[in-house]
Amino acid sequence: MGNRAGRRGQLIVLSGPSGVGKSTVIAELFSQRENLYFSVSFTTRKPRAGEEEGISYHFVDVAEFQRMISAGELLEYAQYVDNYYGTSLKLIQEQLDRGIDVLLDIEVQGAAVVREKCPGAVLIFIVPPSYEELARRLRGRNTDDEPVILGRLRQAREECRRAMEYDYLVVNESVSRAAADIQAILRAQECRIQNQMQFIEGVL
Amino acid sequence: MGNRAGRRGQLIVLSGPSGVGKSTVIAELFSQRENLYFSVSFTTRKPRAGEEEGISYHFVDVAEFQRMISAGELLEYAQYVDNYYGTSLKLIQEQLDRGIDVLLDIEVQGAAVVREKCPGAVLIFIVPPSYEELARRLRGRNTDDEPVILGRLRQAREECRRAMEYDYLVVNESVSRAAADIQAILRAQECRIQNQMQFIEGVL
Repeated sequence: MGNRAGRRGQLIVLSGPSGVGKSTVIAELFSQRENLYFSVSFTTRKPRAGEEEGISYHFVDVAEFQRMISAGELLEYAQYVDNYYGTSLKLIQEQLDRGIDVLLDIEVQGAAVVREKCPGAVLIFIVPPSYEELARRLRGRNTDDEPVILGRLRQAREECRRAMEYDYLVVNESVSRAAADIQAILRAQECRIQNQMQFIEGVL
Repeated sequence: MGNRAGRRGQLIVLSGPSGVGKSTVIAELFSQRENLYFSVSFTTRKPRAGEEEGISYHFVDVAEFQRMISAGELLEYAQYVDNYYGTSLKLIQEQLDRGIDVLLDIEVQGAAVVREKCPGAVLIFIVPPSYEELARRLRGRNTDDEPVILGRLRQAREECRRAMEYDYLVVNESVSRAAADIQAILRAQECRIQNQMQFIEGVL
């Protein structure tokens, strides 16, 4: 697109409760969209069966993770149970500088940090069409027993409370519609006046 | 769309310099989109050949227009040369209340008034891909002689300076792309968190 040549990529944060179908929506987005880079998190957690280095996560040890923290190499990081999870600032900036949009799949706490450090980031929260539907989806996966599911539902309610801190809310009623909503959001963001200043100056 | 039931319509303001192809883009939008209402301006100007009451404009006399001003029935109005032009607040609100989006095709001054009175309105400015292209389009219409065209180009430059007051900038490189940009903007606006509060409360 001629008029958008030379533009920086957009930083996109996607969050949503467990069971909302976020990874399916993300996969659908990547099947439709070029010029989009998925930021793979760094973690100190051990790989589970089937998880691959550089695809599921970048697996590092605690010493290396702490070095990254000290060196300021992480945009955000968090500790869950005994494991660290974090996002590499350098990898993201390389892509953005090349005009490539970067998608982060992170939790609400991490999203709040990105909001603060990168005011231009677009924050999207994905929700289920209803609480009942989320419960149905979590039970349908047959991966967790009932106490775990109830815990996830409680957590989902907490997370949804923080949806107000996001720019956009996408309802995952169907994967195709949720992906189309996100596509529209990204296209609209490109038209936002703050992202078009270079063009305006050119026309003037 | 279940989750958007009961929502209010969106007020959309479209502005852009003469010759940018705004009416073609608007016609394309209306061919694609239901649930969109075009706000026809009121004017005291006499109808030109081919102009129809209620389609081009609502034609009223000066006394009636001044009555509308006094009665607070106009969202915005302006005087050009000896004629008044204005937008009926009542007609717009009726549509918005019914959940129908309303499109206003107004000048930058009017847009500034709408911005102030309706903070939720979406302001979109349409520009040509370049100044040269605008000059080419204006000359290609063969309707104006050179001094008029130069006047319009000067005015276009003035208007583009005020594009920064808008939310979005759409480049009319092709009608289909400009219309698709606007469609994306409207879809994204529906996902904006402020427009989803009702849904969030429902899920919680």
